[in-house]
Amino acid sequence: MDKEFVSEIADINLDFPQWYTDVIIKTGMVDYGPVKGTMVIKPYGYAIWENIQEYLNKKFKKLGVQNAYFPMFIPESFFKKEAEHVKGFAPEVAVVTHAGGEELNEKLIIRPTSETIICDMFSKWIKSYRDLPMVVNQWCNVVRWEKTPRPFLRTSEFLWQEGHTVQVSADDAEKNALVMLDTYEQMLKELLAIPVLTGKKTEKEKFAGAVSTYTLEAIMKDGKCLQSGTTHNLGQNFAKASNIKFLNKDGELEYGYSSSWGVSTRLIGALVMTHGDERGLKLPPSVAPIQVVIVPIASKKAGVVEKCEEVMQTIENADIRVKLDNSNNTPGWKFNEYEMKGVPLRLEIGPRDIENGVATAVRRDTHEKLQIKLDNIVNEVNKLLTDIQDNIYAQALDNIKNAIVVTNDYKEMVDEVNNKKVALSYHCGDLTCEENIKKETTIKTRCIESYDTEHKCIYCGKKSKYRVYFGKQY
Amino acid sequence: MDKEFVSEIADINLDFPQWYTDVIIKTGMVDYGPVKGTMVIKPYGYAIWENIQEYLNKKFKKLGVQNAYFPMFIPESFFKKEAEHVKGFAPEVAVVTHAGGEELNEKLIIRPTSETIICDMFSKWIKSYRDLPMVVNQWCNVVRWEKTPRPFLRTSEFLWQEGHTVQVSADDAEKNALVMLDTYEQMLKELLAIPVLTGKKTEKEKFAGAVSTYTLEAIMKDGKCLQSGTTHNLGQNFAKASNIKFLNKDGELEYGYSSSWGVSTRLIGALVMTHGDERGLKLPPSVAPIQVVIVPIASKKAGVVEKCEEVMQTIENADIRVKLDNSNNTPGWKFNEYEMKGVPLRLEIGPRDIENGVATAVRRDTHEKLQIKLDNIVNEVNKLLTDIQDNIYAQALDNIKNAIVVTNDYKEMVDEVNNKKVALSYHCGDLTCEENIKKETTIKTRCIESYDTEHKCIYCGKKSKYRVYFGKQY
Repeated sequence: MDKEFVSEIADINLDFPQWYTDVIIKTGMVDYGPVKGTMVIKPYGYAIWENIQEYLNKKFKKLGVQNAYFPMFIPESFFKKEAEHVKGFAPEVAVVTHAGGEELNEKLIIRPTSETIICDMFSKWIKSYRDLPMVVNQWCNVVRWEKTPRPFLRTSEFLWQEGHTVQVSADDAEKNALVMLDTYEQMLKELLAIPVLTGKKTEKEKFAGAVSTYTLEAIMKDGKCLQSGTTHNLGQNFAKASNIKFLNKDGELEYGYSSSWGVSTRLIGALVMTHGDERGLKLPPSVAPIQVVIVPIASKKAGVVEKCEEVMQTIENADIRVKLDNSNNTPGWKFNEYEMKGVPLRLEIGPRDIENGVATAVRRDTHEKLQIKLDNIVNEVNKLLTDIQDNIYAQALDNIKNAIVVTNDYKEMVDEVNNKKVALSYHCGDLTCEENIKKETTIKTRCIESYDTEHKCIYCGKKSKYRVYFGKQY
Repeated sequence: MDKEFVSEIADINLDFPQWYTDVIIKTGMVDYGPVKGTMVIKPYGYAIWENIQEYLNKKFKKLGVQNAYFPMFIPESFFKKEAEHVKGFAPEVAVVTHAGGEELNEKLIIRPTSETIICDMFSKWIKSYRDLPMVVNQWCNVVRWEKTPRPFLRTSEFLWQEGHTVQVSADDAEKNALVMLDTYEQMLKELLAIPVLTGKKTEKEKFAGAVSTYTLEAIMKDGKCLQSGTTHNLGQNFAKASNIKFLNKDGELEYGYSSSWGVSTRLIGALVMTHGDERGLKLPPSVAPIQVVIVPIASKKAGVVEKCEEVMQTIENADIRVKLDNSNNTPGWKFNEYEMKGVPLRLEIGPRDIENGVATAVRRDTHEKLQIKLDNIVNEVNKLLTDIQDNIYAQALDNIKNAIVVTNDYKEMVDEVNNKKVALSYHCGDLTCEENIKKETTIKTRCIESYDTEHKCIYCGKKSKYRVYFGKQY
């Protein structure tokens, strides 16, 4: 029974891409939309997104972020205001040409990101330093047309949050980008149990229109990097393009300094590929839609179902997300089903357990089986969930540490990256030099680890500017 | 001071439309987007929408509704599947013709509503009666191009939730439409303090593609009706168009029975126009982004600000949404500002109040001033908020009762409706007869009050089919 069930998922070691597709489809997280490149986020996937939203909204509130909603239609003329920005996004946009039965006078761009429209509104709202900082966030859909889509990772439409700020100084904008980077890093650690590399993007890899971009790079089980969030110090670029001026404390008109930051439904893909194993998903309790599943054993025996329902109620009352599976499927089938779905903890309750006043608990992370007392069930379950959360993070941290190798030679770097590693190497920081590496190998820089001018660039041999992570990417 | 401030808003009795615009713009709920017909929902408006979302998500969960997300791009061919549906929505849609730098092979409709795409997915997911009922909801943006837009009421893009179900029988689909009608009615009453007329739409006014449509009609202070939510029994229309078939308990393949239901950011418009008065917004505490504002009096006197902060903390710890306005504006300016913003309760705290161990509380609904004890502040505030909520609902209920008149004569009906009333009159139910009334007067039916064949139609004189509400509408 076990074997048959597990074989529905491709072998994680032999075919990681197929394993990913199998897991996300078969666990009911996602389905393909009718338009190529689009996805349907099904309830089991969407619940994860809702948990991310809830976590971030609480953090945002403490940081003084206010939620709002801006139109998704951006006039083509707005979109073109910031030169780098339009160059970066033009190839990916979807365009509305007709509406209300007529051809439009001006084409509308569906937001690939909202800097241009939000900055336009900010220019109307901001008059004085007293209006600053302005810190606004929106949860919305965005569109970036994808030629080679993959659910959660790259889709033509996806969901995200985008925060946008205007500050009184360059320093404040930079600080904000770093505060949000830190907030995302905490979220990734505490909620998703994903350790990340954080740092600045190189000039070549930064956001179109930014002064500097910071990134959170998670490393998947196949050694590829997944950009899991970015924060941008936009300097005065968008303020100048949109004419955001404020009266500063000295009574002078000055352009504002802005930042923006976002995470998207990509995070769900990162979650799958950071923790999953040969049995399927492995979800950290903090974000799992179902934290505990109860499976009745010999459920036709008197009192079993009743006891399961009682235990479920007790656990649910303690605000633990619990499901009792009382269906006609066999216990073996259910074990496999919920392991595939990554439910962190399974409780089996049968006649003998009831006699002994216990439930048999099985951990998804270690497969460890243990007896826990029914009369102390909430404490026992909470203790286990905390321990599972910590352990899943520790496992992921081990993986990421093992994935990183220091290389001081170009060929070695390329070999290591092709061998599923992330390489940490010195680079001169020259745009063309970085471009050449990418052309030869498809390998890109992920983020700057540290600044260092004492070494030589692995590619051109000139003086190094920094040490940077090289890796393949999703 | 008072006068000057209030005069910024048009007189509610002289120019209701201008009053509405002034209130929603000047309280920071909304702004106009750069594309005609679009709106920016600013933080003070969006917080209301978030409270609606939170309330409904809790209700939905209890009803077994699962949240999900479907793509916003609908292939033109899908959209055309249900004949009535395409006829109803075609004039309003926005169309994407180009994406990713190329002209698309098939045009994409931006969802005006998602029946066609969701039913297509359902047809893949549903095999057997064991998969039913399927009950899925999404929170999203939708697009219906508007020639005469007004923020919240009619905009080319708006936010809503749309629930979609498939059931095993016609009866179940009908029941579901009624359960959701009831859920919305509760929400309108408990959260927004808006009493509504509920009932079935006539054949003429029902949703494009539905068997029957139920509506919740709120009556605004100018006597016009505002459709505040609808639920639809779609019968097998969409199931047949999308080929949703399931194996029933007798082992036969059968088309599913579906329903759908939604409320939108229109509700914010209803909230404004149901409760607002000459001073601006008047928000029921349950939904108010700020439930209590604290205004320090003689704030430079020692201990005043500290006491205000202490009181704020105490109130905030009790999960009451409170704001302390410690800005340099005068108390008088602040009184006006928060009255305009509709904050239900104001607490003034000055040196004398502190001496006496009290705060001066001022209700937004009755303008009543009373002293409440600081050492029992949470209980006192909660009691007042409950009372304000009840009173605001009672006021609205009085208004709606006063707005309805029974008329048994066509001319009288038209006169009453033109005189800001909602008329309750007999009608034959004939489509052409109803169409003629609309053509002559722009007056439409709102919903059926009761079935009755004992009277005569007010327009054509034939036998009545029902008694129905006639009114003007937003």
